[in-house]
Amino acid sequence: MFNKSLFFQKSEHNVRRFNSTLRWLLVSVLIGIVVGLISGSFGYLLQAVTAFRLSHAYLLFGLPFGAMAIVAMYHLILHEKDPGTNLVISAIHSDDRIPLRMAPLIYISTILTHLVGGSAGREGAALQLGGSIGNAFGEYLGFREKEDRNIMIMCGMSAAFSALFGTPIAAAVFSMEVVSVGIMHYAALLPCAISSLIARAIALYVFGIASPSYEILELPAFDLNTGLIISGFSILCGLLSIFFCVSLHKTSALYQKLFANPYLRAFVGGCAVLALSFAVGGIDNQTYNGTGTSMITFCMAGDISSLAFLLKILFTALTLGCGYKGGEIVPTFFIGASFGSMFGNLIGFSPSLCAAVGMGALFCGVTNSPITSLLICFELFGFEGTPFFLLAIGFSYTVSGYYSLYSSQKIVYSKYKSNFIDKSAK
Amino acid sequence: MFNKSLFFQKSEHNVRRFNSTLRWLLVSVLIGIVVGLISGSFGYLLQAVTAFRLSHAYLLFGLPFGAMAIVAMYHLILHEKDPGTNLVISAIHSDDRIPLRMAPLIYISTILTHLVGGSAGREGAALQLGGSIGNAFGEYLGFREKEDRNIMIMCGMSAAFSALFGTPIAAAVFSMEVVSVGIMHYAALLPCAISSLIARAIALYVFGIASPSYEILELPAFDLNTGLIISGFSILCGLLSIFFCVSLHKTSALYQKLFANPYLRAFVGGCAVLALSFAVGGIDNQTYNGTGTSMITFCMAGDISSLAFLLKILFTALTLGCGYKGGEIVPTFFIGASFGSMFGNLIGFSPSLCAAVGMGALFCGVTNSPITSLLICFELFGFEGTPFFLLAIGFSYTVSGYYSLYSSQKIVYSKYKSNFIDKSAK
Repeated sequence: MFNKSLFFQKSEHNVRRFNSTLRWLLVSVLIGIVVGLISGSFGYLLQAVTAFRLSHAYLLFGLPFGAMAIVAMYHLILHEKDPGTNLVISAIHSDDRIPLRMAPLIYISTILTHLVGGSAGREGAALQLGGSIGNAFGEYLGFREKEDRNIMIMCGMSAAFSALFGTPIAAAVFSMEVVSVGIMHYAALLPCAISSLIARAIALYVFGIASPSYEILELPAFDLNTGLIISGFSILCGLLSIFFCVSLHKTSALYQKLFANPYLRAFVGGCAVLALSFAVGGIDNQTYNGTGTSMITFCMAGDISSLAFLLKILFTALTLGCGYKGGEIVPTFFIGASFGSMFGNLIGFSPSLCAAVGMGALFCGVTNSPITSLLICFELFGFEGTPFFLLAIGFSYTVSGYYSLYSSQKIVYSKYKSNFIDKSAK
Repeated sequence: MFNKSLFFQKSEHNVRRFNSTLRWLLVSVLIGIVVGLISGSFGYLLQAVTAFRLSHAYLLFGLPFGAMAIVAMYHLILHEKDPGTNLVISAIHSDDRIPLRMAPLIYISTILTHLVGGSAGREGAALQLGGSIGNAFGEYLGFREKEDRNIMIMCGMSAAFSALFGTPIAAAVFSMEVVSVGIMHYAALLPCAISSLIARAIALYVFGIASPSYEILELPAFDLNTGLIISGFSILCGLLSIFFCVSLHKTSALYQKLFANPYLRAFVGGCAVLALSFAVGGIDNQTYNGTGTSMITFCMAGDISSLAFLLKILFTALTLGCGYKGGEIVPTFFIGASFGSMFGNLIGFSPSLCAAVGMGALFCGVTNSPITSLLICFELFGFEGTPFFLLAIGFSYTVSGYYSLYSSQKIVYSKYKSNFIDKSAK
């Protein structure tokens, strides 16, 4: 048979490729295990610290000092200016190096942030932990080519994101998608999938970190009317994501302009967050302190203050601008969910669906990663609301322009025409 | 507030962008409606023709003549050599033009293929119908820039795929992903999503074409053991997808070498498919004639002959090589499902899950479109088997190398390193 001989000839060729891939697979398993253990312990500690803070509200008085301690730590160990998650992203599309000491620094400083009640997430921590450990694997295992080390950085990012967020599918894709918008680094697909699944298993079975899941309490049928409502809402989400990105960037710039000394900046910022905590209901309330994960359930029930999304933006911008660490994604979810809840209550259309759509659309708007956004919606809310999510993500992606949480993100292909532009995100 | 003024300044900029996007939205609605109507009627006719053939088995005696009629039609109306789906793909990454007369030709010839019982799918028809109509919209509405027309071609492809396959999410992403592997043409995201959802609604409500859905009868828990079994199986799927692509290419080449005259080739090919139909159980059996959609249910129950996947490859290669039209995707599903069923029965591990995984993995192997594959798995089988699908698609993507159903597909970024290669698929 002519096919058979050809088949063997070609498959031999593929076996060679498979051998070279084998190396990757082994390393991705290793990264999955190591990053899974570290991120799992980190997630466990975060939960413990958050529970402790909620029952010991006086810890919020540590807000002015926590940021100072973090600034001191970075000053002593890394260098004063911490590029953070941006470095992990830029390392993949440029020659920047990720130092391994980024990992313990972000680990400790994020825990500290959550101990004193700073309003921050944990995805910055996830990407920095995972990225720096993945990169270290690449360097210590003697991978010479930058392209090979890139795959390891992505593996580490996926593993940590998966362990901490409990969304392994979205995590596997996120690191391939977020670096260069319009390019999918599929060479990392299999390694990222493996690292992500292993890290998730470790986080779940060793550290008991479950995957989050929210129920859409009232899911209307998808038709012209409901589709148009969600389209309109997601245009607002796209605009809100610009507002959030700009708020973060500008608050940080304003801090630096007003307070040249980083310790003073940290102290004043901490005081501001503390004052704000008092202003919105006292330190026992803590609606806007920490990640706010637990608030999302209230949002899904349409049971949150109308201005919650603005307050969370303010809290997060003030927290992250003054030196606290953690990330912006869980706040993004909170903001999207509370914005959706407000919108749904306002127009009388399933606040629960709007909250879910708000989370997905805002995530897409601030990360420019539509596929990850779609997958994260499936993992958080199930598959039923799919057409709404697809539409919302499409609108938010388009409306949100070239803004991003990560200034080192590259927009390689235009959002508006199918051509190559390779510009940096705003 | 400093944020507010900035917000308005930036959002004004975005409103300008939004206006230019508005044009797209309107056109994507139009394309969704028109392509939805045409593809819906096409899908309806295909179902009718298939039912008619099943109850009038003697129609298979038309096999030697159907292909001749199709060759004659293409010779008269287009030109003798039909580039088919490859032209739709290459039109997006090159300056090739898609003639509108491609649409009626593929419409009629695919119906004819299924009337006489050729073993073929309908995705080639979907992509050609949608792509050529989308392109015609671009030309007639006076869109001058190639990038703009590209988006319209992609809209049309998504709309037709969605209407015919009943998987709107995968359809929206497929046309952005399949053209240039490693690049996501996200500029088309929102238009494709809109066209896809509208076309699906029309196919469903006007023509009654339901979305397919298969139940995984026995879903084992995802753990190290089951994960390794599925990994091993999907490596085989990756190799099988190479075998399928090579079989199609080589059968076509062999036909041309043996029978220089296209009418003779069509006649002999038709006779071969007819003879084969007799050989596998007579013309009343028809297991391998037509798309074989109905057979997939048997595969999901583990209830199909062990060699079914090889026979379907042979049937499809002989059918498409001699001049029949339609596409390779539904045969791909059949082959993947029957291969999985065989594998599951052989090793005593959920034939149903293996069949589902086989469909997703084989689709990924022959199209090099992992995200679409993942989404299509969710749409066909629900979200429960997700980790299996992710792993299987990762392995199949890696193992299947640079083979593809579409020789005009570009592999822009290497499958094995994160670097730019821009080579044509094999």
